This record gives sequence, structure tokens and C-alpha cells, in this order.
Amino acid sequence: MKDIGAPEKYGLPLSMLRSRGNTSVVPLSWVKHILYLLDQRQLPHEETWFAYRSAEDVEQAIRDMVVRGAPAIGITAAFGMVLAAHGLKDKNKGQFVEEWLEKAAFMLQARPTAANLKWAVERLEKLARKHYKMSPCNLTSILEKEAISIWTEDVKANLSIGFYGQALLPETGGVLTHCNAGGLATGGYGTALGVIRAAVSRGKEINVIADETRPWLQGARLTSWELIKDGIAVTLVVDGAAGFLMQKGLIKSVVVGADRIAANGDVANKIGTYAVAELARANNIPFYVAAPVSTIDPFIHSGDQIPIEERGPGEITTFAGKQIAATGVKVHNPVFDITPHHLVTAIITELGVLTAPYGPAIYACFS
Amino acid sequence: MKDIGAPEKYGLPLSMLRSRGNTSVVPLSWVKHILYLLDQRQLPHEETWFAYRSAEDVEQAIRDMVVRGAPAIGITAAFGMVLAAHGLKDKNKGQFVEEWLEKAAFMLQARPTAANLKWAVERLEKLARKHYKMSPCNLTSILEKEAISIWTEDVKANLSIGFYGQALLPETGGVLTHCNAGGLATGGYGTALGVIRAAVSRGKEINVIADETRPWLQGARLTSWELIKDGIAVTLVVDGAAGFLMQKGLIKSVVVGADRIAANGDVANKIGTYAVAELARANNIPFYVAAPVSTIDPFIHSGDQIPIEERGPGEITTFAGKQIAATGVKVHNPVFDITPHHLVTAIITELGVLTAPYGPAIYACFS
Repeated sequence: MKDIGAPEKYGLPLSMLRSRGNTSVVPLSWVKHILYLLDQRQLPHEETWFAYRSAEDVEQAIRDMVVRGAPAIGITAAFGMVLAAHGLKDKNKGQFVEEWLEKAAFMLQARPTAANLKWAVERLEKLARKHYKMSPCNLTSILEKEAISIWTEDVKANLSIGFYGQALLPETGGVLTHCNAGGLATGGYGTALGVIRAAVSRGKEINVIADETRPWLQGARLTSWELIKDGIAVTLVVDGAAGFLMQKGLIKSVVVGADRIAANGDVANKIGTYAVAELARANNIPFYVAAPVSTIDPFIHSGDQIPIEERGPGEITTFAGKQIAATGVKVHNPVFDITPHHLVTAIITELGVLTAPYGPAIYACFS
Repeated sequence: MKDIGAPEKYGLPLSMLRSRGNTSVVPLSWVKHILYLLDQRQLPHEETWFAYRSAEDVEQAIRDMVVRGAPAIGITAAFGMVLAAHGLKDKNKGQFVEEWLEKAAFMLQARPTAANLKWAVERLEKLARKHYKMSPCNLTSILEKEAISIWTEDVKANLSIGFYGQALLPETGGVLTHCNAGGLATGGYGTALGVIRAAVSRGKEINVIADETRPWLQGARLTSWELIKDGIAVTLVVDGAAGFLMQKGLIKSVVVGADRIAANGDVANKIGTYAVAELARANNIPFYVAAPVSTIDPFIHSGDQIPIEERGPGEITTFAGKQIAATGVKVHNPVFDITPHHLVTAIITELGVLTAPYGPAIYACFS
């Protein structure tokens, strides 16, 4: 798991991105049966790439947040399952599928909230079950092609989300985003930041207001870094300042990503998103959610049913190994929250812009 | 300005506090014409006391946030002006008052938002002008007595705020507070935390939910520390989690302090307070502001007129000298915001509980 330097990058998604003038921040790479992940815990200070050769190590990387962001987690898990298949190629057919499915069940436990993890792993599972009679070698090859498709489809979806979403942003002014729903959180280009990238490339003069996003500082560390790389204006604020900026008229629009969207349009996203939505409503500012259809969980009726991950207290009480909170303080660290659908102005997907009532609009995406 | 260890503490406020079973966290001490300040930048790791012998050094300490919290700033500034008087004792009467008033004008520039700074310095100014014919030595003595009164009155006010406020808190359950409006922010006991202390001492089973309060982490560093010292249950959360906890029914009441209250009841307080107020409203949770009358600025009609301090970007981009944000990112760091009066359920003062319409209620406090 040592730093191997930036690997030669897998071609397809990058060429798609470069054609859009994007500097191609991507969180992963797949070269000769090795998965490379950019360690997002060390950004923006160090660009360290780790090489992964087993599903177990990939599961641990997702759990430890080497990679994060719902779509990026899904793509990473898919490649993790390709690595699992590679490791089982010498088994006989029956053993191969059985053990591979066990590893898939394990992979699903990595993080609970992101819909795309389940979606991606189940997509590969379906294929494995369909082709269970194939040789392990051939099935592995099919799984690899599917993982690559999941990746490239995600980038295409983001470009499409950008196309639909950019029309909703103002010609000029502040656009707030929370957490990082950028290239680093997806296969590339980003969902919320994809919308912003598309707007800027169409000549809109957007100043991105980035919430720093405690406890993990995705806004300070990742969103700012990505946008500066692309030459997009960005101003960093503490999470508590979003409402003040709205009161002052400095924010014309909000756009965020999503970790899971329920069938009724309730949105699970990074902790603090609900507060932003409530403040946007109070200040008559549109609140947009940008996410591929793979983030929608049509089997979950409402946000109440979405599991909310609780992470360790150290994310809040310590920084870079140094204690920052009073010793012995109890901590509650839910890392996602639910924005009820009535606060969502629109959900921007690769199939188009969904508006309320979200139930039928979401149902139509799956029909 | 070197650490002199915890000084022998000035007696009166502490005896008042100890009689209430309080562990007597106070931010300052006044012993033999020396002002001692507990360095709040180093809490909770180090309890370092600095000794101050000049108004200029006190002004710098307020500016650098060795001491913070509107009432504590007011008291500190008052003792700073006593130090100024001491330093001018050898001047003749005319020179004494003239130079002392210059130093007062300088002291008023230390921080712009806290009403109590202006209130306390102007209270001493009034006295200096009234007794301008006195000898510098006698006038200095009068100013010292007044500064001590400002301190002890503040502690009494907090005990009274606690008495009135505790009745508003639930018998049991979560009470959210933002920033630190505790003993450290006042002469002792605290405003918002005074209300909580009073409720707990009356047997209410309060679990304090402390917002960590970026960027300065007053909740993580100061509020948690104070409450743990007093054996009061406290749970630390990131600022973005307050709304989620409200949705889950984990917060029954909100109580915060104030840095300045306008004549119409608009409240300036630590950045992020407005968000908490908006979320409380949306979730039908009462939102209380606890503050002494000295925090009310009756000459300011509404919150729009309250100056909001903008502090340096380093508070957000660095931690303990280490860069945490992407290099070169622009920062907006307003450290207070305005909660409009319509979101305030009640203002708890030492004179009683004020409710809407706040204009007449506040006017009555000054009549």
C-alpha cells in the first residue's frame, strides 16, 4: 500500500473529460489489473496514489476514506470485485461464484449510506449469477468490462448532469456547495461541481462558496483544491457562515451532491446539508441536488429508512493526531443527514431535471 | 506576558459562585493592580495565566482573543482602563483625563461587535468626566472600584439570568448551545451556560449538546471543558449536525449568548447562530438568548446596523500552524451573524424574560 506515484491513467474517462477542457481530477485508475486510488485523506498537501490488488484491501480503503463520495465508492467497489475475481481465477466454477459472492457481501459492508456501493456491487452480482456457467477466467473478463462501463457511464452521466444543471445556475454570482461532489467524489467531472464546471465553461461568472464541511473538511481540502486546479473562483467559509452569506445576498443558488435519494425525493448527503437546505428555503434561494440515477434507491420509500453512518469521535476531537476538544467529552458524529424532499427545488440527473412531485418523477427514471 | 501560573483570585465573584456549587471558572483575576487573564487560546490543553500591567497590552489581548465573550471583554477592558489610570497617576489633572480618554478611545477599537466593550468603557468614561477635578490618585481609585463593580454586577446578573432562565428549560433532555457563553465568556457562571447550570442545580436532567463552533472551536475547547469541570453531561457535535439532531428529537431547547442585541431584539452572536435559530424554528424548538442588559445596545435600531467583525483567513485555512485548506483559496471569515428577532422565542436578562414584541420590552429595561 505504499505510494507508487501517479500511475499511468486509464484512458477513456480522461479523454472524455479533456475534450471538455477539464483538468481531469479523478480519484482512481485501473491499469493492468491493479486499482490505483488517490489518497483523499492526504489532499491537498500530498498527491499520493496507492496500488490495490485485493478486494479486502479495497474494502478497507473505502472504510478508511482513502476514497469517498457515493459514485466514486461505487466505482471503486466494482473494481474491488474485479480484483476479487482475479484472485479466485484458479478455483473451479462453483467455488469461484460462491466465494466471489461472499466477498461481494463483505464489500457491501464497507460504508452504509452511499446507494452507489450497493448499486454497483449488485450490478456485478447480477452478471456473475447470469454467467455462472462460464469459466472463471472469462467471467472475470466480463466483470472487468462491466466495472469499466460503470466508471465510464458515471463520467458520461456527470457530463449530462452538467449539461442539464448549468441552465439552472445564475449568469453571475455566488453558488454555494457543501462537501465535495466533484471529480474526486465520482468517476470524474463531478455532480454538483460538474454542474458548476458546465456553467463556467458556458461563460457564466460563478463564484463558488465552499462550506469547509466539518469534520472531514471536504470543502477546504478537496472542493477548493479541485476548483483552483480548474481556475474556477472559490471562496471558503465555515459551515456556520452559509446562512449569513445568504442573508447578505451573496448566494444565488445552492447545488450539492447526494449519497442516497429515496423514492419520495428525500436526500441523504453529508452532515450539514439539511441545514443549508433549510436556510436556502428561508432566504428564497433555490436548492439543487445533482446526482446520477445510480444514487437513487427506488426500494426505499423515504429518508427515514436510509441508514445514517456514525463515525468515530476522533474525527471531531482530534486534528492531525493532536487533541482539539476537552478531554473526556462525549461525541455524536453522524456523517450524513436527510434533507426532506419539500426543501429540494430540483434533482438534476443524467436523464433530466426532476421536480416535485418527486415520487412519479423518480418512478419514471426506472420505467 | 509570561505564564505566571494561576494567580490568587480576587475574592468576591468567586465566593458568590462557590455558594452555588459552581467550580468557579473565571476568565480573569485582579490582584494588587495587576490584571490576570486565562489564555483561552490554549484551553483546554493548558491553563496559562498572563499578567497585564498596561492598557495597550490588554487591548492587544482582547484583539488576539486571549479573552473573548462579550461580557468578559467588557470587564477586561474596564480593568485595562484602570491600568491606564495607574500608568498616568504622575500626570497633572488635565493631562491625566486627556490622555486617559485617548487610551479609552483606543481600547474601544479592540473588537467591533461586542456591545459590552463600549458599555463598560463608556461607564468608566462617564465617571472620569464627572470627577475630572479629583486628583489622579483618587480618580484611579474610583475607577478601580467601578471596574470591580462591573465585574461583580456581571456575575450577579448571570446568577439572576440563571434563575429566570432555568424555568424555561425542559425537565429532561437535550439542550443545544452554540459557541461558549459560559463562565469563560463572562465574569463567571455564564449566560447561556448559567441558565444550564441553574437548571441542573435545580435537579433538571439536561444533556448539553455543544456545537463545536468553527472556526475557533469554542464549543469543543471551552464549553465542553467548563461543563465537564462542573460534572454536567455534554455531547460534542459538528455545527452541521445540529439540524439532524433536531429532526431526530434529540434537542428540546436551544440557549445561546449574545454579543450585541439591537433595540428591536435582533441578536448578534457567534457565526452559525442564525442557522441554529432557523433550524429551531423549522423544527418547533424554542430558541432562547441569554444576556445581561449590558449586551443590549438601545441606540441601534436593528441588526443591520451592528458591525460584523471579519477576522483573518488563517483561522480557517490553518490549524495549530499547519495548513488544512487548499493553497491559495480565498476566504471569507465573518465571525458573527445576526439572528432576526422573529426567530427568538425569548431573551433572558437579569431583569426577567423578555418576549416579543421586543421593542417595548427592551425599552422598558432602560426606563
